[in-house]
Amino acid sequence: MKIYFAGSIRGGRGDAPLYKEIIDYLKTYGTVLSEQVGDLSLSEKGGDSDNDRYIHDRDMKWLTSADVLVAEVTTPSLGVGYEIGNAVQQSKQVLCLYRKGEGKSLSAMISGCPDITNVEYTTLEEAKKAIDVFLKDI
Amino acid sequence: MKIYFAGSIRGGRGDAPLYKEIIDYLKTYGTVLSEQVGDLSLSEKGGDSDNDRYIHDRDMKWLTSADVLVAEVTTPSLGVGYEIGNAVQQSKQVLCLYRKGEGKSLSAMISGCPDITNVEYTTLEEAKKAIDVFLKDI
Repeated sequence: MKIYFAGSIRGGRGDAPLYKEIIDYLKTYGTVLSEQVGDLSLSEKGGDSDNDRYIHDRDMKWLTSADVLVAEVTTPSLGVGYEIGNAVQQSKQVLCLYRKGEGKSLSAMISGCPDITNVEYTTLEEAKKAIDVFLKDI
Repeated sequence: MKIYFAGSIRGGRGDAPLYKEIIDYLKTYGTVLSEQVGDLSLSEKGGDSDNDRYIHDRDMKWLTSADVLVAEVTTPSLGVGYEIGNAVQQSKQVLCLYRKGEGKSLSAMISGCPDITNVEYTTLEEAKKAIDVFLKDI
């Protein structure tokens, strides 16, 4: 199975260690195309050595070839939103994992989209369970 | 002309007064479908009286019927990213307006997308000029 993982890069890297844990778990199910999202050495400047057109085209090619999209959506991110919007238009299966924080709400474009499987979680174990449930029917 | 304006709601309302100014200017060109994005009474909780499914379906209907999408992308936002990704897949004309800040970079999914007109600006006057250039050929 080809899995595209989406997490914030230039929107903020506060959750990068968590992305890495999720990616490591997804790899037990198949190939994770966008593994660099969990690279702890990647800063908010993200992929400075590549130009933005190259990054965009590579990631869109990966997304188009993927069987599913799994996104961690706690940190607001234009790129993650763009990838989700694109994947929904391509009728891909999408799982969004969200940790509820005080005074914050998930975008209605994500939480209100009938074509997305939305799961709120607290612990990594809960995220893994949501991934199991989502991927077992793919 | 029908214009869909995208700006952050639940990602943060710091730029809401600026959204209002941009929307007021866009209204000299046509109908702005998503005018509530510039409503200064709308908090980060955004549209509490409506449910998320209703907000999603209404906004997607507006976006699909729009001639163009104009987005202010300085505040990272999942919803704005989702709308841009969706609009690009629908082959809509998209203008993204961005104010560069210290230590911050625009997502490569936006800045590297060949189907988006990206403009960096500082003052409202510069944003208005970018809108003039973008809309004069529509």
